[in-house]
Amino acid sequence: MTAPDEANCSLVKAVELVGERWTFLVLREALAGATRFSEFRTRLGIASDVLAARLAKLVDSGVMVRREYREPGRRPRDAYCLTDAGRRLNVVLCALQEWGNEHLPDTVSTVAYRADDGRRVRVRFVDGEGGVVPAGEVRPEPR
Amino acid sequence: MTAPDEANCSLVKAVELVGERWTFLVLREALAGATRFSEFRTRLGIASDVLAARLAKLVDSGVMVRREYREPGRRPRDAYCLTDAGRRLNVVLCALQEWGNEHLPDTVSTVAYRADDGRRVRVRFVDGEGGVVPAGEVRPEPR
Repeated sequence: MTAPDEANCSLVKAVELVGERWTFLVLREALAGATRFSEFRTRLGIASDVLAARLAKLVDSGVMVRREYREPGRRPRDAYCLTDAGRRLNVVLCALQEWGNEHLPDTVSTVAYRADDGRRVRVRFVDGEGGVVPAGEVRPEPR
Repeated sequence: MTAPDEANCSLVKAVELVGERWTFLVLREALAGATRFSEFRTRLGIASDVLAARLAKLVDSGVMVRREYREPGRRPRDAYCLTDAGRRLNVVLCALQEWGNEHLPDTVSTVAYRADDGRRVRVRFVDGEGGVVPAGEVRPEPR
């Protein structure tokens, strides 16, 4: 049972997509450069059927696309590449990571984010002019 | 089965905490100002036992604190208030909302974020000097 507006809430749909543990880990590895089934399986220690289901869900959601590749002398295989929408989830992952690093005890981050030129970056609220707004000054808009 | 470093990964722990649907919705309502058990129950249409379990989990995780309050002529009741760590999840929710609005079809946002003075704010990558870095220029750091 949910409130009438929940079914189409972009926020709820987004968290349902990326909030599932394995889906999230697959995304993390994809953002770190993994594209092949065997890469995801090895890096995550995930069962093949679980991995296949998660990849299919990410393809269905428009976060990844399936592309065939073939190594010399081998049969064709599928690679899984992030779409532009998928790559844009880096902001969400980085925001979660920063929060976890700061507020969850006894954890370490296994990934950090930097600009292409090697600068460390953070996730912050910014206003229309690009000025940083402290998180403590930000409120949800009343519905 | 998970890779050896997963157990203490701040990113994984963060998504396990906030990624569960009801926990996430409780957080969303808390960020929007809900504090009383009955408020959460009414706004979300959630079963009381499920709500009690999610609130307990959020208290255990340091995201909320339980405070007793008493209305005139009534028995004492518990209110659930966000801690500083909990309030800081607004960046994560806003990042998810922006991504969902942009990339998930047929959805509408049920909450939006503004600075206290009414300015609309967005979540962006910024560098050490506070300059906005386009998301497409940001990469995970090689592990």
